[in-house]
Amino acid sequence: MLLEVVTIGDELLLGFTVDTNAAYISKVLAAEGMEVVRKTTVGDSADAIASAVGDALTRTGAVITTGGLGPTSDDATKSSIASLMGREMREDPGILAALGERWRSRGLPMPLPLSNANQAQVPDGAEILINDFGTAPGIWIQDGRGWVAMLPGVPREMRGMLVSGLLPRLRKLGSPDSRGVIRSLTLRTTGIPESAIADRIEAAKPVLNGASLAYLPGVEGVDLRLTLHARSAGHADELLSDAAAKLRPTLGSYMYGEDDSDLAAIVLDLCRTRKARLATAESCTGGMLGSRITAVPGSSDCYVGGMVLYANSAKIQLAGVPESLVRMNGAVSEQVATAMAGSVRDGLGADLGVGVTGVAGPGGGTPEKPVGTVWIASGTSERMEARSFRFPGDREEIRQRATQAALDMVRQLLTS
Amino acid sequence: MLLEVVTIGDELLLGFTVDTNAAYISKVLAAEGMEVVRKTTVGDSADAIASAVGDALTRTGAVITTGGLGPTSDDATKSSIASLMGREMREDPGILAALGERWRSRGLPMPLPLSNANQAQVPDGAEILINDFGTAPGIWIQDGRGWVAMLPGVPREMRGMLVSGLLPRLRKLGSPDSRGVIRSLTLRTTGIPESAIADRIEAAKPVLNGASLAYLPGVEGVDLRLTLHARSAGHADELLSDAAAKLRPTLGSYMYGEDDSDLAAIVLDLCRTRKARLATAESCTGGMLGSRITAVPGSSDCYVGGMVLYANSAKIQLAGVPESLVRMNGAVSEQVATAMAGSVRDGLGADLGVGVTGVAGPGGGTPEKPVGTVWIASGTSERMEARSFRFPGDREEIRQRATQAALDMVRQLLTS
Repeated sequence: MLLEVVTIGDELLLGFTVDTNAAYISKVLAAEGMEVVRKTTVGDSADAIASAVGDALTRTGAVITTGGLGPTSDDATKSSIASLMGREMREDPGILAALGERWRSRGLPMPLPLSNANQAQVPDGAEILINDFGTAPGIWIQDGRGWVAMLPGVPREMRGMLVSGLLPRLRKLGSPDSRGVIRSLTLRTTGIPESAIADRIEAAKPVLNGASLAYLPGVEGVDLRLTLHARSAGHADELLSDAAAKLRPTLGSYMYGEDDSDLAAIVLDLCRTRKARLATAESCTGGMLGSRITAVPGSSDCYVGGMVLYANSAKIQLAGVPESLVRMNGAVSEQVATAMAGSVRDGLGADLGVGVTGVAGPGGGTPEKPVGTVWIASGTSERMEARSFRFPGDREEIRQRATQAALDMVRQLLTS
Repeated sequence: MLLEVVTIGDELLLGFTVDTNAAYISKVLAAEGMEVVRKTTVGDSADAIASAVGDALTRTGAVITTGGLGPTSDDATKSSIASLMGREMREDPGILAALGERWRSRGLPMPLPLSNANQAQVPDGAEILINDFGTAPGIWIQDGRGWVAMLPGVPREMRGMLVSGLLPRLRKLGSPDSRGVIRSLTLRTTGIPESAIADRIEAAKPVLNGASLAYLPGVEGVDLRLTLHARSAGHADELLSDAAAKLRPTLGSYMYGEDDSDLAAIVLDLCRTRKARLATAESCTGGMLGSRITAVPGSSDCYVGGMVLYANSAKIQLAGVPESLVRMNGAVSEQVATAMAGSVRDGLGADLGVGVTGVAGPGGGTPEKPVGTVWIASGTSERMEARSFRFPGDREEIRQRATQAALDMVRQLLTS
């Protein structure tokens, strides 16, 4: 199945918003053997929408649009595609009722504002794609030339609707591409630079079953993406997992997971298995480590809580780090990181404490401790380890890298 | 001047790479009075490239492409556009010499590999756009139908060539769009739904000097972006700031800033002015509030630190919230939020404490306190306020909305 994507919005056209929807749709469909052959972006103009969708329909007869379904007057997708297909607009009582229900359940005063009620207008003969993640329903409309599926522009809503509403419908529609599917598998590493991984792989020359290998460096580490074409999803996944098995020994303990796996979730799983309760003490990361951990549902099993020891007074007053220790070694030091980790562990009755203190910049650097210097300590009452790091990047990137490194120190501690 | 952008590459079409080039080009051109009216993405296929560029030429006569200029065989941009325009390919001796020089200067063995030498092939009659940032030169080609400028796909190279090579040429080419430049100004609001703002604006009917108004809802609130065409940048900015002044009374204290302003930075500025030191106590946000605040450089002026009181034991042990209070009211309650805020304020010697406790989900909801229920308290030793919220969205979105609402409660406290 060949199809086209048309993303709609002045936002996208003016460059105020980077279009992430088109890439997401392509990836999801490619994994199913459905190929996006062209993407077009137009603004919130009825003429431009009708022209782009009309061209796409003529070429492939299969079009997904995103955007322009909201309640405001600049949302022109439904009406322009309706007129392209020669349909009238009508009010859908089911949508209107659902919108009202949603409005009421949020405790907002009835009646529903007129602008919201506009969302219940749909082209005649269209089918509704339920939106479980927002107010704008998606639309499916079909004629002799082919079909158009209209999804909302908000990425979270679009993604949910694509996977739960549209994809099952497309699978039923048709034969997959004769060239087969494109699948990929990603191995996630952290704590090792891209060039060092490349050298290791160069030396080991693992046989990757024809998969191409891409290096994707980021603040959480370097991801290695294996991609291949195969005649079926099952066959592709087999070849990919075999290639990954051959690559894995080269990566050693730098590898922490596959695909979308999150290091915080992996650390929590390790804590769960070992019945270890975790607490965090953060200075330069200011809560980011706690936030990463508690982003994982169910983290309350193992994560007790933490201290944000931003000012030195907080380190002294709340964590009881001796003032002399801070004065003699500086706030960014092995001694202070270790004291923070120990104090939060004992103060919160946890088994494992982590302490992070560093210079995130842009100010505060010195020749001995330049911006990017971070000390991290992690340990139980029996065993405490501390390491210093020198992270590249700006303030936010240094904080993100420090957070990831702290999680990785806990992982290493729990697996060694 | 109206133009189109065609971005080229299988990576983009398959969704492995998000297209940031198209947005960058639009933004740079819009500020110069040149308007991108359509963007198209196709893969590395000669037919697809020729078809997309041909269509764009027919519509506007002005096309910028990115990608497909590299040395590998899947780079088909130049040859397909040459044949679209009926031109032969020829070798450019200047490019060949420059490529050889670059190769030699990197200490690589001569002769230049054939694949690199291919980069010296250009369409007959084309002009070269020098690339100071990489090996692939850009191409400018023109005929009776209009012009095509081919830029490389690597963002850094593309950006350099756009600004230093292409833009001066486009400025000379022509009369900027007779409609002049496009500029915008954004007013940021929080704590009020999109439809409620729309109704207020509908009722007030402010005169916006011809600016269009876009509603941009997100987890931090609803941004209102005013965009207008004007004959000069100065004139546009004047009209925009006048329109903003007319819109502002309608938004009242829901508006907290303009353009890229960050609520955390605004709260810190207010604290600085009022010499108030701030401390945070977080349960469901797990450190996200502290992280938002400490993301702002210089936050150590006013932010002391905080407590992450995730488990009930942490609320009791670290913050001294009475166990009976938690048992009687539940951890998500006005009483516990207030106790958390007071305890962190006093425990860290701050003037102002904020406490956030809620049900972020997906588990943990009850009929009385469904997922999304959050209590936030904020106050000094003299005055404490607490409010309950019911946020929509998934776990991460609820946490982000709660963080923003907590910052907003501090802002309201400091400005009332």
